[in-house]
Parts: sequence; C-alpha cells; structure tokens
Amino acid sequence: MKNLSSITLPKGFRAAGGTAGLKPSGKPDLALIVADHPCPWAAVFTQNKVCGAPITVGREHIAAGKGIAFVVNSGCSNVATGARGIANAKRMCDALARAIGCDRDQVLPASTGVIGRHLPIDKITAGINALVPRLARGPHADADAAVAILTTDLVAKVAHRTVKIGGKTVTLAGIAKGSGMIAPNMATMLVFLTTDADIAPPLLRRALIAAVNADASFNRISVDTDTSTSDTVAILASGYAGNTPIRQANEHFRGFQKALTDLCTDLAYQVIKDGEGAEHVIRVIVTGAHSDADAVKAARTIADSPLVKTAVHGGDPNWGRIAAAAGRSGGGARIDPQKFTIKVGKITVYRNAQPAKFDVKSAAAEMKLPEVVIRVNLNLGKSSATFLGCDLSRQYIAINADYTT
Amino acid sequence: MKNLSSITLPKGFRAAGGTAGLKPSGKPDLALIVADHPCPWAAVFTQNKVCGAPITVGREHIAAGKGIAFVVNSGCSNVATGARGIANAKRMCDALARAIGCDRDQVLPASTGVIGRHLPIDKITAGINALVPRLARGPHADADAAVAILTTDLVAKVAHRTVKIGGKTVTLAGIAKGSGMIAPNMATMLVFLTTDADIAPPLLRRALIAAVNADASFNRISVDTDTSTSDTVAILASGYAGNTPIRQANEHFRGFQKALTDLCTDLAYQVIKDGEGAEHVIRVIVTGAHSDADAVKAARTIADSPLVKTAVHGGDPNWGRIAAAAGRSGGGARIDPQKFTIKVGKITVYRNAQPAKFDVKSAAAEMKLPEVVIRVNLNLGKSSATFLGCDLSRQYIAINADYTT
Repeated sequence: MKNLSSITLPKGFRAAGGTAGLKPSGKPDLALIVADHPCPWAAVFTQNKVCGAPITVGREHIAAGKGIAFVVNSGCSNVATGARGIANAKRMCDALARAIGCDRDQVLPASTGVIGRHLPIDKITAGINALVPRLARGPHADADAAVAILTTDLVAKVAHRTVKIGGKTVTLAGIAKGSGMIAPNMATMLVFLTTDADIAPPLLRRALIAAVNADASFNRISVDTDTSTSDTVAILASGYAGNTPIRQANEHFRGFQKALTDLCTDLAYQVIKDGEGAEHVIRVIVTGAHSDADAVKAARTIADSPLVKTAVHGGDPNWGRIAAAAGRSGGGARIDPQKFTIKVGKITVYRNAQPAKFDVKSAAAEMKLPEVVIRVNLNLGKSSATFLGCDLSRQYIAINADYTT
Repeated sequence: MKNLSSITLPKGFRAAGGTAGLKPSGKPDLALIVADHPCPWAAVFTQNKVCGAPITVGREHIAAGKGIAFVVNSGCSNVATGARGIANAKRMCDALARAIGCDRDQVLPASTGVIGRHLPIDKITAGINALVPRLARGPHADADAAVAILTTDLVAKVAHRTVKIGGKTVTLAGIAKGSGMIAPNMATMLVFLTTDADIAPPLLRRALIAAVNADASFNRISVDTDTSTSDTVAILASGYAGNTPIRQANEHFRGFQKALTDLCTDLAYQVIKDGEGAEHVIRVIVTGAHSDADAVKAARTIADSPLVKTAVHGGDPNWGRIAAAAGRSGGGARIDPQKFTIKVGKITVYRNAQPAKFDVKSAAAEMKLPEVVIRVNLNLGKSSATFLGCDLSRQYIAINADYTT
C-alpha cells in the first residue's frame, strides 16, 4: 500500500473514501479530501458547453475565495439535471460544510457517472456524515479516496512529487479518475491535487494552467475524442511546508511549476494507460511544426484517428494511416506532404514523400510494444508537441455498447 | 441484375470491370467508364493535404478541358508514393488513351486501397488492354464496373435518376465505393457519375458542388472521422439526351440540380449503410441552429461521437452522450444547454435542461431500428443540417486491426 499514499503526503490534509450506495455494484462511490484550514486553491474545468451542475457550482466557489475541501461522488454525474441538479450540488457541499465546520463555498463538489440522472442526495448526505469521522492521513485513507472516485477505471491513479524550495521540501500529490469520455479541453475527467507549498493564489492558478497544458499532460491526451461534461482538475495548497513563500514568478515558482507539471503528466499517463479497452499507449511526438498550435493539431489528429488506433491494436505498421491522419489534421495545421517524415519507434517508414525502405518485422515489433511511439517531423519550423492516445479495441466497444443507462 | 444497371443508363457511355491481379484475393480490381466522345466533366477531390498521385494528376486533367473516361483500380491507392506515383498515374491514363484513341488528359485516374505501395503498373496496363474490348452498355458491364472499384465494401453501390428537361428525359447515374476512412471533406471515397444531359461545364461543376454539399450527401456522412487521401466524385455529361441545352441557372438547371442531389444522397446513404462493421445508420437532424455552419458542426460531432456510436450499437437510449457530444461540438457551435431538446426517434428524452419523462423501453426500441434518428433542436435560430453516421462495432475493430499492410 506504500505507493498508494499520495494526497495526504503533503502536510495539512486528511482524506477518506467509502460507499454511499450510488452504484448497483455496491463499490465505493464517495471521497473526501479536507485541508486543516482555509487555503489557496485553483481549478480548471471542462470547456464542454453541456457541463455538470457541480462544475457550475464549483466555478462559483473557486471564485469566492479560499477553499478547504473536495467532495466527490462516482456513479452519478449530476449533468443535464436542471435547477434540481444545481440545488443537489449545493446540498452536497452544505452537508460537508456542516460536518467539518466551514462555509459551503469553501467546498468544491465533483460528480462522475451516468449523465441525466438526479443525484440521490439523501444517500450522499448520509454517506458524508458517515465518512467525516473516518478522515485521516496515510496510505489507507488515500487508497480509499483514490478508489472511491473511479467508474470504468480498472486501477486507481495516484502520484506525488517533491521539490526543494528555499531549502525546504515541498510535496505535491494527486489522484485521478478517467478511462472513457477522455478528450480533455482545459482539464481531464477528475483530478484532485494537494500541496503543502506556501504559494500566492494567482501563482497557484498560473502553475495549474501551465501544468494542465504541458506536453503529454491532461490537455494532451485522448481516449476516445469525447470531451467529458465533468472534467475538473483542482488543487489545494496548505502552505504547511514552511518554504520561502512563492509570491513572484521567480526560480521558486519555476521549481514548483516543474514539480506540478511532472505530477500532472504522471497522472495523465496513468489515465491513458487505463483507457477503456486499451492495451497500448500511443505517444505521438510532432516536431518541426510551423506553430505550437499546428503541432498539437497534427499530434491530436494522429492519436485520435480510429484507423491509427486499430492499426496499433493489430500490431500493424500501416504508416499510411498516420500519413493520412496528418494530412487531414483538424483545424488546418500547415503540412507539406513533400517534407514530412514518419518514424514508428526507431524505424523511419516515410521520407521524401515516399515509402522508406524498412524491415517490416522490426516495424511490426515497434507497434507491439506497450508504448508505441510515433514521431512525425513536419520539417516546417521549430514547434513541437507530444500527445498521448491509446489503441481502439473490441473491449472498448464491449464496455460502451453494454454500459447500461 | 436489372437494378444494377446504372452508369450506362445515360446515353453515350460504355463500361467494363475485371481483374488485373492487384488483390491477393483475386477479386475484381479494375474498372473503365468511357464516353462516346469528349464531353463536359467536373470533379471534386479530397481536401486531405496528403493526397494520392491520381488526385494530383486528376486535378490537372479536369482543368485541361473536356473528358472522355474514368480509369479506376482498387487494391492499391497510389498514395504517398512520390514522383514514381505521379508517373504511374499518368501511365495508367496513357494506357487507356492509347487503347481507345484519345488524349491522356481526357482520362481521369482513380485508385483505392493500401496507402504507401507502388502501383504494379504493368499489371494495370495489361488489365486495361484486356478490358477495353469488353466495354459495353447494360447491366452486366455496369455490375462488373461497380464491383471492381470495391475494397472492404460488402455490397456494390449503384443508383440512377431521371428528370424531364424541356420535354426530354435526362438520365443521371452513378456508382460509389466506400466503407471505411469515410469522413469526406469536399467529396467521398470514389464516386463516378454519368449523365446524358446537355449542360455547360461551369453549370455542371456548380451542380456537382451543390449536390456533394447537400444534406445527407457526401460531405455530410462519416463512418470513422478519417478523411481519405483518395476522395473523388466525378461526373461526365455526354449531352445525348437532346434536352434544351442548360446554359443558365434557370428552371432547367434547377431540375438537373435536384436530380443530381437526389442521386448523390442515394449513393451517400448506400456508403453509410455499408460502413465498416455497421449495423445501424444514424441520422442526426439538427434544427434551430444559429447558422448553417453551427448546424453541421453539431450534427457531425454527435454522429462522430464514439460514445453515441457505441450506445446505438448496444441499443441503449443513453441520451446523455448525445447531450455531451452536442456540448463539445467541434469548432465551437453556439449551443445553449438551457434551450436545446433531444429526441430519439419519436421520443423526447431531454427538454428544459433536464431529463424528460419517457418510456425507456420505447426509447430503446427506437435505438434498435435499422435507421436510428436523433433530432436535436438547438432553439437558437432557423438553420438546420442532416448528417449520417453509423454505429461502432467489434466488427469495425476486427476489419481495421486485422487489415494487413
């Protein structure tokens, strides 16, 4: 269990996870992460215009000032539920606020699960009241919370990082949930981060946005192109590390930024690795792009292509599909078919606008690795991007065709 | 076989189809469609920046003047093949031009199949020489040609229409090929049309572009979001119908336009119905959009959503996925979650920003029909669009993971 300890590793946080009874399976479905006192927080949310009631309420609460807690349920997303959904999201915050003694708007709510069902708020309230006495630090509390936020995920996703700031060790940690409906746009499914850094709120927010948009981080992954209605990445900073306070974008900020980006990239990788039905991670590295935006567009289009995804699933070095995806890059990335090269792993398969001579068996072996690396050099400029996807399997169909509403 | 007669129904055309030996299966792979004399022609091609050598050569030939023939092979797409690919596409045209006595640039070449392999040009040339003596009118010739252009398609796709213009019957006909890598952008996989209308070249081109962009026509369908490198829709007009010549955008033009649009919509439907692994056609009708572009974006995003496609495959009225897809509509369609309604078949499932009360069994029955109709009224304006997709099945994965390069 040692490795599962994460969100309570930074000083100043307690967690708990348990079962409120929302899932027919009876699996854990409720998690709490609570800081010892009101502290700076920041969050980014889905850009999907159809967003959950917890997103609407969460945006208000983040804007209102400092925060203390995250309350999260799985099994019911509270999306597309109208005024009653908003009221339920607020009642969820109220229940925790009453139990721990804080204001409602110091609690960030999050929900994940089926869209279009009303939250069974009485079960949630009872669950919160039962969980609060179990709030604790340490691996058991962390593991319970990490498991309770999952839906179709096969494994819990936890990570942490440390960084020295002004001679003091600052710890950052997080848990994530996400397996399908993953094509984040500003954030991914659900990610909760804690840190004991002493950092000013605007810099905390700036660091979070940069970390989410870093190469191979949450805005650079996709399981199935379907942006969720519930995407949330949120962080609480307790300030208990005793570090030189971070009040400017100086070397201390950059150290914190790097650690936060590393943490987010670690969790994003865990999300993709657990993509619904996935057997391979596909890492698409586009270099030589005319602009950063072009690099991201080309990398995303290749990683999202059903034909590239099925080729990887079949272990087939059918690089023509990679070339075709690059050529149609969403939003019109600048591509010159005469100039770009494609490598699968270490093997160059396309160069000078024609097939390279390569050993098909070696290329097929590269396509069968747990992580398949596709490198496209557009040879048009100096921008680059790394985007992560996964293969598309019969199991994805099984999971999503048979998922009962 | 009566119904298979199509491309030689308009007066002034002959066709043939046969086997040149490009496919390991030995299935037919070469088709010829030849007019009796040089005539107006028009074509639209893929917007994929990685396009086949036949597209590059075809664009030049269409621009050069009148046309006489289409030469089409399946089994090898001649895409990403550099200068040798261009030379091979020209040699393909040369072979037919020599055999029937015309100029090379009066022949439009088209190729479909695996990307990144060189065309076995000697087999193609020998195949053309063997096929030319078999050029004929009537259902057998039509059926041979319609079958020879197929790859993963399960069925041949043929259709025709007639329209009275100035008291004379004008006939339009076409064959199509396409089953995967279908997300046309200006055109679909391969479509060859003939008509005996007497029509000026600029009006023929204008009619073709309008027909391709009509509701539920080639630019409004997607099997798998993967825009092909070989998309081509081309038409030859022999002028043999004896109709009042169409020289202006008058009632005669509108009659021709309507018939051509009907024909294209018919063929587009056949392409979607034969989508790789598809068991259902998904018809997404978006109304009440702020603009035509918004309507198309919303309809396309819903029809392309893997989660909507798998829900249809599972017969599951999981309308939350439809709402989520509408909310993320690619390119930023204007959507107000408070205003839009969703119907599955005849059943309203979402209204007033919350779940409608509906009978789940009735909704599930609508999801199990051969054609599933999803209606989204955005209630923001007067624009509308119809887009066709298909469900996503294990069979799609099997076809594309096991398709050998």
